[in-house]
Amino acid sequence: MARIAPMSGFPEYLPAGRMVEQRVTDVLREVFELHGFASVQTRAVESLEMLNRKGEITKEVYVVRRIHATETDTDSLGLHFDLTVPFARYVLENAGHLQFPFRRYQLQPAWRGERPQEGRYREFWQADIDIVGQGELAPHHDTEVVLVMLEALERLHIELGIPEVLLHANNRKLAQGFYEGLGVTDPLAAIQAVDKLDKVGPAVVGELLGEQGVEPGAVERILALAAIRTADDSFIGEVRALGVMNELVETGLAELAALVGALNTRFPGRAVADLKIARGLDYYTGSVFEIEMPDLPSLGTVSAGGRYDALASDGRNSYPGVGISFGVTRVLAPLLTKGALLASRPVPSCVLVAVDTEETRVAASEVAAALRARGIPCEVSPSAAAYGKQIKLAARRGIPYVWFGGAQGSVKDIRSGEQIAATASLWMPPEDDLKPTIVKTPHEKSDRA
Amino acid sequence: MARIAPMSGFPEYLPAGRMVEQRVTDVLREVFELHGFASVQTRAVESLEMLNRKGEITKEVYVVRRIHATETDTDSLGLHFDLTVPFARYVLENAGHLQFPFRRYQLQPAWRGERPQEGRYREFWQADIDIVGQGELAPHHDTEVVLVMLEALERLHIELGIPEVLLHANNRKLAQGFYEGLGVTDPLAAIQAVDKLDKVGPAVVGELLGEQGVEPGAVERILALAAIRTADDSFIGEVRALGVMNELVETGLAELAALVGALNTRFPGRAVADLKIARGLDYYTGSVFEIEMPDLPSLGTVSAGGRYDALASDGRNSYPGVGISFGVTRVLAPLLTKGALLASRPVPSCVLVAVDTEETRVAASEVAAALRARGIPCEVSPSAAAYGKQIKLAARRGIPYVWFGGAQGSVKDIRSGEQIAATASLWMPPEDDLKPTIVKTPHEKSDRA
Repeated sequence: MARIAPMSGFPEYLPAGRMVEQRVTDVLREVFELHGFASVQTRAVESLEMLNRKGEITKEVYVVRRIHATETDTDSLGLHFDLTVPFARYVLENAGHLQFPFRRYQLQPAWRGERPQEGRYREFWQADIDIVGQGELAPHHDTEVVLVMLEALERLHIELGIPEVLLHANNRKLAQGFYEGLGVTDPLAAIQAVDKLDKVGPAVVGELLGEQGVEPGAVERILALAAIRTADDSFIGEVRALGVMNELVETGLAELAALVGALNTRFPGRAVADLKIARGLDYYTGSVFEIEMPDLPSLGTVSAGGRYDALASDGRNSYPGVGISFGVTRVLAPLLTKGALLASRPVPSCVLVAVDTEETRVAASEVAAALRARGIPCEVSPSAAAYGKQIKLAARRGIPYVWFGGAQGSVKDIRSGEQIAATASLWMPPEDDLKPTIVKTPHEKSDRA
Repeated sequence: MARIAPMSGFPEYLPAGRMVEQRVTDVLREVFELHGFASVQTRAVESLEMLNRKGEITKEVYVVRRIHATETDTDSLGLHFDLTVPFARYVLENAGHLQFPFRRYQLQPAWRGERPQEGRYREFWQADIDIVGQGELAPHHDTEVVLVMLEALERLHIELGIPEVLLHANNRKLAQGFYEGLGVTDPLAAIQAVDKLDKVGPAVVGELLGEQGVEPGAVERILALAAIRTADDSFIGEVRALGVMNELVETGLAELAALVGALNTRFPGRAVADLKIARGLDYYTGSVFEIEMPDLPSLGTVSAGGRYDALASDGRNSYPGVGISFGVTRVLAPLLTKGALLASRPVPSCVLVAVDTEETRVAASEVAAALRARGIPCEVSPSAAAYGKQIKLAARRGIPYVWFGGAQGSVKDIRSGEQIAATASLWMPPEDDLKPTIVKTPHEKSDRA
């Protein structure tokens, strides 16, 4: 017998936790579909060549091969580490069958061979939405994908008690134009240095920029730009005051102002312009966003995305897109492991139908069928033990009602002890009891120090 | 740029096919939850030691390792090849937190390193239900899991046009007792030989049994037993007529008669006793079932399962169970690839809200929000082009309605051309248009020769 133990970095939930995850993904799916995003699922594996395109991250890929692979097997496969690379491949592979702008959502696990540590997952679910054009894609779609994700996250907050979010937005054009205006020779390298600001602080970022050959005066203004953070469009004046203007900076300012303005109209207080946001990945070309949960700063970035003008391209067409990804496991695994969110019961069943004798089990099954026909989840008692034992079994499994007798029988709420006469084809439980609900258990609201 | 091409054995669908898959899994989930089965998801990987327990199948496992794994990495992981092994591990790992009999369903992909060929998949979705007891599990649960699966498959047939099914049931005790009564020294080896009957025919199975040292007279009666197939309990008389009775045979006959009787009462014509059904896997100990689709014999077995009394055991307890697995990909991939089933449109959107000018895009977004608030999926036109072009875009994406003007506007059914005045907070499309429906396209009903 193999050793039975949890595997670090591969979270699994008990049924009451899994029900929370199901509700979360149900809400995400509903919101995405209401906005016209179609579901896409891609295979778990990509060729290693495809996974290698992004460079840096390759070191964390899980390679997959047949256990009895032979010399002649040329497959070189890896598990996908995000949903963006597979989606770009899917768009290229199926471009002739898709209608653009193409809108898809994708809810799947991804895998990374991370070293096990708190908050790092080797298997994690993501929920991605993207809008991709053929040849061109209007800038208003940047605002659109963020609004859709914020709407979904706002519903998770209101309906399920998932913490509130705050979105930080920036625009790559702004930083790139600004750096170019300062005479920085490798703006992308500078963006990647600034991306480390939260981790290492401004002094170290300044040193990194210096090592890249950026002049001290320019370093100062790059750090000043990165320090700008405003809840409205006053960032525009602050950027202008730094005295580095050009066409790219103007375009970036206009796009960012449009984004932040639209977000604040629809979700006041949920978005800020934050000019240090860089996103390390090199495929972003315009808007970039990061979402955090201010009451749970330890989670870090729970959702992120941006505009990419050249992620996917075949010989004839480019496919510019904009997308945002929500880290389902990143948010849920800590909340579910702590028991901060739970289903009101660990079973779908609302009713346990008691069995008098094994000979009359069929009659109990008919009661159950009548209840199910009206959408009431139920199960028939596994044994014809004394009623007291069957009630105890229901209590143990978390089932709130026990049905006695036939179709014209009685039903007992085992929490209150109240028992009433009932007809299987008519009785309905209170709406809150019909299906498990999500319960926010008392716990520290915040993990802020 | 890596080569872009489909990967043999890893099916992926276009959005209109994926919608069919979503509807199928929605129906499965609904039926399973109505019967009190809780959702469980396990990680994609297990230790190779765990995956090795079943022997034979190991050759098809996909091994997973970090691309930069070092000498000191002791992980030896593989992708799970079914959902039964991970579930057995999950039960043992979490036994202290589960309430028995524990009922779970699991809807996930599994992976096998099969050689690419027609109908063999390297990544495939399965839908499993199992009921597991602690120490003991009553035999009526065998009937229960089959009834639940048949109810789900019957709904898929009626609601979505998935072909009808026929269940073949047998009982391992019957075969084992019968073989023991004939003096066969290794009944399990004999069962595995009989399992090859459909593939190689009775003559070859007879030879295989002969090689195992089974006497010619016994071979004859083993083949006679395997030839028995009845739609009711008349198999009992046919078995008795073969003159090999003992306690184990009696138990097997009684359990099989109870199963077939209950199935035929609830789903007449959907189940037969078929005494050649063996299921090669060695963990089954009682009931065994296989489901085929008589109109699509090329699919082979689309669902299978059985009773296992000793799949999972820790030192203190054993966890007997019974389960059945439905091959979602096995059934859907051929139907979707042929286009035999499709969604009525490839987008969730019911309405495209037209945009007059980029300046009034916000007004169009407000119309869309009013429609979504009442559950109508919609999208706002990507461009403020001439109305004719926006209608063409809707037609291209398969969206049936276009909305013009503001909240007090008009809506056009672009299929009929009919346009009516409408209020965004009141108008509802016909129910059939609200969400994509599943369409069975004209195709050969049967692939029978």
